[in-house]
Amino acid sequence: MESYQELEKRFRRLSLLDEAQAVLGWDWATMMPEGGAASRAAQSAELSVIRHEFLSDPRVEVCLEKAEASIEQLDEWQMANLLEMRRMWLHNSALPASLVSEITQANSLCELAWRNARSENNFSILLPQFERVVSLIKEKSQAKAEVLSLKPYDALLDQYEPAGRTTYIDPLFDDLSEFLPGFTDKVIEFQRRSRPAEKLFRRSLCETKQRQLCETLMKMVGFPFTHGRLDESHHPFSGGTPEDLRITTRYDARDFTTAMLAVLHETGHALYDHGLPKSWRYQPVGGPLGMSIHESQSLLMEMQVCRSPEFIRAILPHISEVIDSGSGPITESSLLRHYHLVQRGLIRVDADEVTYPSHVILRYKLEKMLVSGELLPRDLPDAWHASMQDIVGAKLHIGDNSNGCMQDIHWYGGDFGYFPTYTLGALSAAQFFEAAKNQVSDLLTSIEQGDFEPLHGWLGKHIHSLGCSVPASELIIRVTGKGLTTSPFKEHLQSRYLNH
Amino acid sequence: MESYQELEKRFRRLSLLDEAQAVLGWDWATMMPEGGAASRAAQSAELSVIRHEFLSDPRVEVCLEKAEASIEQLDEWQMANLLEMRRMWLHNSALPASLVSEITQANSLCELAWRNARSENNFSILLPQFERVVSLIKEKSQAKAEVLSLKPYDALLDQYEPAGRTTYIDPLFDDLSEFLPGFTDKVIEFQRRSRPAEKLFRRSLCETKQRQLCETLMKMVGFPFTHGRLDESHHPFSGGTPEDLRITTRYDARDFTTAMLAVLHETGHALYDHGLPKSWRYQPVGGPLGMSIHESQSLLMEMQVCRSPEFIRAILPHISEVIDSGSGPITESSLLRHYHLVQRGLIRVDADEVTYPSHVILRYKLEKMLVSGELLPRDLPDAWHASMQDIVGAKLHIGDNSNGCMQDIHWYGGDFGYFPTYTLGALSAAQFFEAAKNQVSDLLTSIEQGDFEPLHGWLGKHIHSLGCSVPASELIIRVTGKGLTTSPFKEHLQSRYLNH
Repeated sequence: MESYQELEKRFRRLSLLDEAQAVLGWDWATMMPEGGAASRAAQSAELSVIRHEFLSDPRVEVCLEKAEASIEQLDEWQMANLLEMRRMWLHNSALPASLVSEITQANSLCELAWRNARSENNFSILLPQFERVVSLIKEKSQAKAEVLSLKPYDALLDQYEPAGRTTYIDPLFDDLSEFLPGFTDKVIEFQRRSRPAEKLFRRSLCETKQRQLCETLMKMVGFPFTHGRLDESHHPFSGGTPEDLRITTRYDARDFTTAMLAVLHETGHALYDHGLPKSWRYQPVGGPLGMSIHESQSLLMEMQVCRSPEFIRAILPHISEVIDSGSGPITESSLLRHYHLVQRGLIRVDADEVTYPSHVILRYKLEKMLVSGELLPRDLPDAWHASMQDIVGAKLHIGDNSNGCMQDIHWYGGDFGYFPTYTLGALSAAQFFEAAKNQVSDLLTSIEQGDFEPLHGWLGKHIHSLGCSVPASELIIRVTGKGLTTSPFKEHLQSRYLNH
Repeated sequence: MESYQELEKRFRRLSLLDEAQAVLGWDWATMMPEGGAASRAAQSAELSVIRHEFLSDPRVEVCLEKAEASIEQLDEWQMANLLEMRRMWLHNSALPASLVSEITQANSLCELAWRNARSENNFSILLPQFERVVSLIKEKSQAKAEVLSLKPYDALLDQYEPAGRTTYIDPLFDDLSEFLPGFTDKVIEFQRRSRPAEKLFRRSLCETKQRQLCETLMKMVGFPFTHGRLDESHHPFSGGTPEDLRITTRYDARDFTTAMLAVLHETGHALYDHGLPKSWRYQPVGGPLGMSIHESQSLLMEMQVCRSPEFIRAILPHISEVIDSGSGPITESSLLRHYHLVQRGLIRVDADEVTYPSHVILRYKLEKMLVSGELLPRDLPDAWHASMQDIVGAKLHIGDNSNGCMQDIHWYGGDFGYFPTYTLGALSAAQFFEAAKNQVSDLLTSIEQGDFEPLHGWLGKHIHSLGCSVPASELIIRVTGKGLTTSPFKEHLQSRYLNH
């Protein structure tokens, strides 16, 4: 027990360090003036090195071995905590401190170059930094692969999705790749016939009022503003800590509908963090399960709940309050048509839920090739162009890399192996929400009344409060009675988009 | 040389850690939602403990001894760097890690309690936290006194003002205590006779426009916005790092004149940080000299430069741009009368430069008594009330602690020994500016033309770029040809306030 208790103390310190790093990360993306980047990168790298040293302390390995040798003394949560500690230790032990520091700095600087490169549509100005990032990622993936006895790409995936493997993802993604093209054709044809000949739905709204509307909706779905805030960044994200939730968005003054749902998406993430088990605060087992379950919480909120007719009815009065009615009233059906419009587009974050998985599958394919070396960073723009046509079915102008391979921050910030969790999240969200509707009576009615307590209660009890005390695959079985499949997602799409 | 070089590496890491802490501190005061306080306090305490461990590593002591043994191999800057490392080490070695962590957390929580207590004018709700802070400060000062062979209060002072001692401060403050009451009477009488019978100068301006005006003036005096930003907090401060300057203010929508000068004051601090020697970045000797020199830079900017007729003439057009002229034009003489008005008031941060030292002397007296135990925290309100009458000559309503002992953040954040540096700074500012006017031809003319290059050039060369390579007392002699005295300050006051 003593060894285990020493581990708890050590991992508590690690968690506090990670939280300090999270605040620096939020500040980097929202507040920091450009000229602060180099020194911030150095500060962040230093915290990463300290984190690495904490885990590399020989006492940690000794304690892990001792605690594992008498694991029968631990209760279920303590066991799960110990398992997660070992996983973190393995990931850490694969990399020397110098590499950790190099990676952190290279990622920070590349991400900064990406901000400029994207706004100037100039891939070549970030290429040197990006080549450095990819080269370090290859080194990292190989080092982790050896220690974890995994393939290099799986070793990266395992960082975001514990126990996530390509062998688990491939059949699910193959199934979607087979289903989606034909289904998308049908929906586009169905919408072409059934939709009135109307112009693109667009309503301008100043940023101040958009922010006000977003905050109103955040409150409605239960975001605790005493424990969080909403700010702006290039790429929306949910950061901070469970008691200090920092979500961000970007506003398009010409169209209020985008930021609104982006914010609700990030609110889903934040509510998960806020609902994590308080009694396991600062311990590994008290953290979130992995990115697919995290994403299931944001997508359950955004896609399953907030794009439903019930939610749209609940929020119409709030929208009418801030929108100038001069250009005609906003109705339930006009908003729903807008939010359910299916199009083969270029931008992942603007994609509807039908075509979204194809954007993820494209990235999944290309990032595996970047990691294996089959694809060189300099050839990424061309590969993206071709895959956009083949996989998404959308035509990208040659040279338009801002809307192509530079649209996402992930790779430029060093995140490889993250993308598939979006679609695993979408599948999980559909499966969870199906279960929630079966288990909570009148769930949609309460949502329509703006009452989110029943949904929170269910999510809190079955998902949030479990931290990572059970593996994701096991959680899904416990909550829904079956392993993760594509069926609930496909049924949800058929019902929403073809009225089946 | 090897030992010295190892020290440079180790102190670079320390500096990066301190900078991460500075960002967390800024966020705490400007951005953090209230519910994040407890976990942020824990994060901050963890960074303090890591800092403590860095310095407590036995290698540091070994390297210090070895490097000191062959100090003749070092150049002048390296020697000064080594001296400062030893000073930091001594301060650190006095305290066990557990006490450091306790102090950091207690300070954070008391500061938070202070925010509420002040706004509710309720001293009793912060008393328990404040008693804890004072008890820890006593413990800290005694521990440091022993290691540094200083008196307990001097040991605290030395943290902010290296080599600062009560024996150095007392004669200067005694001299001011003798000079100021009579001088203040004269000025008040002089102003009563010579001022037209006008109402209190007050012009309302919305926060957005005040912020815009502040940013314009910051740019004018040379604040680099690519390397910094302006935000809001309860108590104005200058934080962040040399490449990422974070200054804050608070706005009073009924009166634009306060925030404006508060911001210029903080800009003076920020320009010092920004001008520190880049080649010694992240090393102790590359840091600022101490708080009295830091304050001299903010007061030189605020008091000597920005309250001068020349500066007021330079900024009048910018003020006229944002101020509604409906209530009459703002003239040079009305602004100068306003900024030069001398009154015995209750609030330090609102005090004019004539009565300001008496506010400092009051705090200097009381904090020495709190540290020695002569004054108990619970008796602070009464002691403040009496001293306000005796020392400042202003009458505080009994029970009005928001305008009394709760007006400043310092003690509630654990800063004891800081206050005297304000007045040392005022004396130094007067002495520096006197030298600058003698050494730079047409300095006031360039300021009137909005050209701050000559002033920056002089400050950069003689003060900022020296870091802490020479002691403060030595720097003053080098720059002004004599040790610190009250004469330039008194002459400045006589010239400005009595036209002598």
